[in-house]
Amino acid sequence: MKIVIDLMGADHGVLPVIEGVSRALDNKNFEVVLVGDKNKAEPFISKELASRVDIIHTEDYIRMEEAATEAIKRKESSIYLAMDILKNGADALISAGHSGATMGLATLRLGRIKGVERPAICTLMPSVGKRPSILLDAGANTDCKPEYLVDFALMGYEYAKSVLKYDNPKVGLLSNGEEDIKGNMLVKETHKILKPYDFFYGNVEGSDIFKGLVDVVVCDGFMGNVVLKTTEGVASAIGAIFKEEIKGSFKAKMGAGLLKNAFVTLKQKTDYAEYGGAPLLGVNKSVIISHGKSNARAIECAIYQAIRALEGNVCARIAEAFERLKSNPSSLGSNTQNV
Amino acid sequence: MKIVIDLMGADHGVLPVIEGVSRALDNKNFEVVLVGDKNKAEPFISKELASRVDIIHTEDYIRMEEAATEAIKRKESSIYLAMDILKNGADALISAGHSGATMGLATLRLGRIKGVERPAICTLMPSVGKRPSILLDAGANTDCKPEYLVDFALMGYEYAKSVLKYDNPKVGLLSNGEEDIKGNMLVKETHKILKPYDFFYGNVEGSDIFKGLVDVVVCDGFMGNVVLKTTEGVASAIGAIFKEEIKGSFKAKMGAGLLKNAFVTLKQKTDYAEYGGAPLLGVNKSVIISHGKSNARAIECAIYQAIRALEGNVCARIAEAFERLKSNPSSLGSNTQNV
Repeated sequence: MKIVIDLMGADHGVLPVIEGVSRALDNKNFEVVLVGDKNKAEPFISKELASRVDIIHTEDYIRMEEAATEAIKRKESSIYLAMDILKNGADALISAGHSGATMGLATLRLGRIKGVERPAICTLMPSVGKRPSILLDAGANTDCKPEYLVDFALMGYEYAKSVLKYDNPKVGLLSNGEEDIKGNMLVKETHKILKPYDFFYGNVEGSDIFKGLVDVVVCDGFMGNVVLKTTEGVASAIGAIFKEEIKGSFKAKMGAGLLKNAFVTLKQKTDYAEYGGAPLLGVNKSVIISHGKSNARAIECAIYQAIRALEGNVCARIAEAFERLKSNPSSLGSNTQNV
Repeated sequence: MKIVIDLMGADHGVLPVIEGVSRALDNKNFEVVLVGDKNKAEPFISKELASRVDIIHTEDYIRMEEAATEAIKRKESSIYLAMDILKNGADALISAGHSGATMGLATLRLGRIKGVERPAICTLMPSVGKRPSILLDAGANTDCKPEYLVDFALMGYEYAKSVLKYDNPKVGLLSNGEEDIKGNMLVKETHKILKPYDFFYGNVEGSDIFKGLVDVVVCDGFMGNVVLKTTEGVASAIGAIFKEEIKGSFKAKMGAGLLKNAFVTLKQKTDYAEYGGAPLLGVNKSVIISHGKSNARAIECAIYQAIRALEGNVCARIAEAFERLKSNPSSLGSNTQNV
């Protein structure tokens, strides 16, 4: 399988991207095409690595502060060229650059899967349960119709089943109470349409996201963005308050030293880097959107995620599901057994 | 000042409510009317406490699983009677019972402050900054118009100024990015209306809530509910993962022991009980909605909060602000100097 990687536009430059690729190549077998500025990349590419990657040179890229629509006009930008390579034969694309540019180009150049109204960004969330849950849409669509949220539910279900290999994944609708009648107008309407689907658990609350109550949490992209950033904010505030408290106390510092393993696990379970990136579901090929501040580990994990998505054949599964399920919600029972 | 307290409908019965009242009476001087089932309450009321409180007896109350609209019909329910006492001369009301019932009755029986389209629930949020921020609406209004959010901004500003005594409080609009153009349709429209107000900081993100970047965070009540519960969820998930990690390790347990002070401070800073309850802003008298699972400390703090609200004369301040500011946004500058 061939993975094309946008070298440009990440917050910390090309180095974490190259290191992530290099680490992933040590563990997995795949072809790589790197797209970006050769002059910036080459100082970090060892001879050994150079023999295993292709580099397509371009200097232009979409800056974080530029409008997403720039990407469509700038045909020599790294993401434009990378998307072309994906369209013309590669299997997956990863970018830690301008996420709006990546989404826009993916939708426009790769096209949506038949039946999907809007592609959605899907992120893994930490959970105290045995397995992480996924949340979508995490930010692709700010204003949504009920039909979009239904699409997100179907796509999330298929991703949980074919890529994460969850048995009978359950899908919850994010609301302000678990009762069926709770929700704003959007959620109430969506609830009615989702009701016949076997995989639909019902409404879930903000606190349920981290309990492993359901495997897939569905919301509009505006809400998804706020929930994600709130989650990051709480975790980092707790860390900051804690650090402030132990500062200046020898006893507390010793305590923190003894707790090092627990802190490491906690960090692993809540660190975005371990989850890789966020797949954009609903376009015709695998696209992974990585955090702008991705470190090498995050890029490495995003590559593993792309490989799992390809092995799980997620785009084909979503296409099949949309054909089958949209016309006949009750067909899901038999489908769950067969797959 | 006279504070009327609904004894009924809290998750843990009448005991935490009575204990909270008793503790607050040890520290502050105020009159209390308790409304609820005398037979349930009396076993917990000492002779000394009995001499300092009035009890209005009623057995009926609105159960959590009942519709909020029940409250309007059930004129012998504890919250109905309590609201009547407030309307007819008491100064503030606190209830840890059915919050929808409290809100509905407050709006209907006390009436809205002139100019306020919708009352909003206002909660204190933990912050790494020097002072907590407030978030509103935390759940009173699921579907909002831009005008409602503008009202929330004005009310939050007045609360921060007159009750929390913040100098020049800054108000932020919760969005999916800090740039002016970010937001869903509701937020974009609200942003335009808020722009002329001096107190308006601009858009803030989910992670900014805990940074102390602004003093007041405004959002619709559906979003507010999800943000609150997400915050609780993350904090308790971190706690659970951590506990699981130190279980079975003597070294880790010893570390946790040495860190006890830090954990206590962390709990204080993030514990809802320390923040008391959530004032319902925009009705004609002070109403505080407490968490159903309030312990004695939470009720005690809610009483202090009610006293501060009365001392700050928040209802009158909001009324004045609506009269002045709605007609002339730029009048705010001089107002800030005068108060």
